[in-house]
Amino acid sequence: MPGKPRAVTQAEIAKQASTTVPTVSKVLNGRPGVSDELRAQIEAVVQRLGYQQPARKQQSARLIEVLCYEIDSPFGSEVVAHIEQAARQSGFGMVLTGSNADNRPHPGWVDDVVGRQPVGVVLIACRLSEADRKMLRSRNIRIVAIDPAGTPAPDIPSIGSADWKGGYLATRHLIDLGHRRIGIITGPADMMASTARQSGYTAALEAAGIPIEPSLIRPGQFHHADGLAEGLALLSRPDRPTAIFASSDLYALGVYEAARSLGIGIPDELSVVGYDDLRIAQWAGPPLTTVHVPLARMAQDAVHLIQRLGEEPELSSSRTDIETTLVVRASTTVPTKVSN
Amino acid sequence: MPGKPRAVTQAEIAKQASTTVPTVSKVLNGRPGVSDELRAQIEAVVQRLGYQQPARKQQSARLIEVLCYEIDSPFGSEVVAHIEQAARQSGFGMVLTGSNADNRPHPGWVDDVVGRQPVGVVLIACRLSEADRKMLRSRNIRIVAIDPAGTPAPDIPSIGSADWKGGYLATRHLIDLGHRRIGIITGPADMMASTARQSGYTAALEAAGIPIEPSLIRPGQFHHADGLAEGLALLSRPDRPTAIFASSDLYALGVYEAARSLGIGIPDELSVVGYDDLRIAQWAGPPLTTVHVPLARMAQDAVHLIQRLGEEPELSSSRTDIETTLVVRASTTVPTKVSN
Repeated sequence: MPGKPRAVTQAEIAKQASTTVPTVSKVLNGRPGVSDELRAQIEAVVQRLGYQQPARKQQSARLIEVLCYEIDSPFGSEVVAHIEQAARQSGFGMVLTGSNADNRPHPGWVDDVVGRQPVGVVLIACRLSEADRKMLRSRNIRIVAIDPAGTPAPDIPSIGSADWKGGYLATRHLIDLGHRRIGIITGPADMMASTARQSGYTAALEAAGIPIEPSLIRPGQFHHADGLAEGLALLSRPDRPTAIFASSDLYALGVYEAARSLGIGIPDELSVVGYDDLRIAQWAGPPLTTVHVPLARMAQDAVHLIQRLGEEPELSSSRTDIETTLVVRASTTVPTKVSN
Repeated sequence: MPGKPRAVTQAEIAKQASTTVPTVSKVLNGRPGVSDELRAQIEAVVQRLGYQQPARKQQSARLIEVLCYEIDSPFGSEVVAHIEQAARQSGFGMVLTGSNADNRPHPGWVDDVVGRQPVGVVLIACRLSEADRKMLRSRNIRIVAIDPAGTPAPDIPSIGSADWKGGYLATRHLIDLGHRRIGIITGPADMMASTARQSGYTAALEAAGIPIEPSLIRPGQFHHADGLAEGLALLSRPDRPTAIFASSDLYALGVYEAARSLGIGIPDELSVVGYDDLRIAQWAGPPLTTVHVPLARMAQDAVHLIQRLGEEPELSSSRTDIETTLVVRASTTVPTKVSN
């Protein structure tokens, strides 16, 4: 079966599901007028037989779907803006949907997508269930992930940036300035982009012969509130760090607020490095030293990958990591006193 | 003709344009396969006869289109997120497109929209040409504007907030604290939302018997860079103001940066009030006193208005202004010295 998925016809599905071809067609194309029960029955047969809808000759809907975590976050909105531009330049419209707090789609999303018949779906820091992935794939709707949440699905090509290197560069910059006590606020442990940054931090310290101090490693969920809370925790210690690698720009703003409320000056008494180089990094006071993530390039690659997946199915398990660089602004300097 | 627009048939259009009904149908539904020349010819007849496509009985595309100025700006992204949520809860998908720098759609947008057959279009700080409005309307695609740019079209219902009151509240707050020299950074002169804020500022000063000083009124385009540049201009004067009403939160961040670079402390040496109450206002250091604009409510109203316009065409010239309130945070206090 897996070898010849296109041999299965809608007539076979109809027969096995004890229904008619027009009804099968409705389910395959996400049209209404079929009971939930019969729909589930047909879907089960579709998956069991490994049916795959042939590519449409005439694109009825030149759409790309985007499922994004926190579309109004500085990160989400910048990625979305770049995808919209890349999609528009390729002649596609962009349908944008927000995810739930667990980085998954809201109920009914996959049915809506099937009904809209887009050429593909871009996931931004999101994940899909296996059932959803199968359903999209049987309709010949392609999937690409940017910074996927959770364990990346092996059958979804993903686009990220060189997170390990970014974490290394950020930490190395602080070490080069003379810092020895360097705290880090890390992202969700189930997200490769955040564990890789932390790993880069650890590697840079080890390379400089600085012992890892677990109490200086603080977890968060990439929210401003985490940066504030963990920043306060780190900076309230008598042996407080002289520098913090806030592994997102939003964390960094939270650390700024923590430092401000404790009367600790940046950069004179505390150096801070962010991550992402969103526009808020330039707007911060002082402007934030941060790791530049090439979001425009990642978005363009995602849109182009969606288009190429039809002709080059071997791309379906590709993983692209785009280069990161350090942008030095005004939030880092030499430590005034080394507390350790 | 205007009295009975539905009496016109596709057959009449075909006859007058010397073509066939299927070709007319293609143009009306935004499908390809018609030369640009013939398309323009048919469009001209459509507009001349005042044809209006009947409402679709079966919504083939449950879509709402959003055209937004700067979709990655803090303002744009928050409004978009609220519209996405409201649209999703009403069972609609959201197609999002960015505008050009002049707040107008990129070429080809209106044809793409007609092809996607959405139920309606929400404009965020954008404007459409009369030709585009007519084209959408003849296809029974409804239009609603949030904070429209330019002179609001009389035939587009719009949703805004009480900008005059917001400007008045912001300025009055500073006067109540004891400030007499209050600068303002205003938005584009061709946008009602910004002229109304400035008018509220003027009214509050006049009500307190404080003379208007034109040199304290500085124009901008709602960008961070304007806040920085105009903030520097205002704060470099020997008779610098003790307070600035930055009529957008992004301006306020620019003013923060200007003050920081000049070594002027906020709020002790300078009070700052923003406008919009975006999340960046809470993240600023110090957290920003600002005018709260009910963006969620505005977005919900826009989505509901799109749905109701079909049944209640009298809404088509409505203008809704939603209440604004002042949120006092840490960027405003009594002036240390009154320089005038």
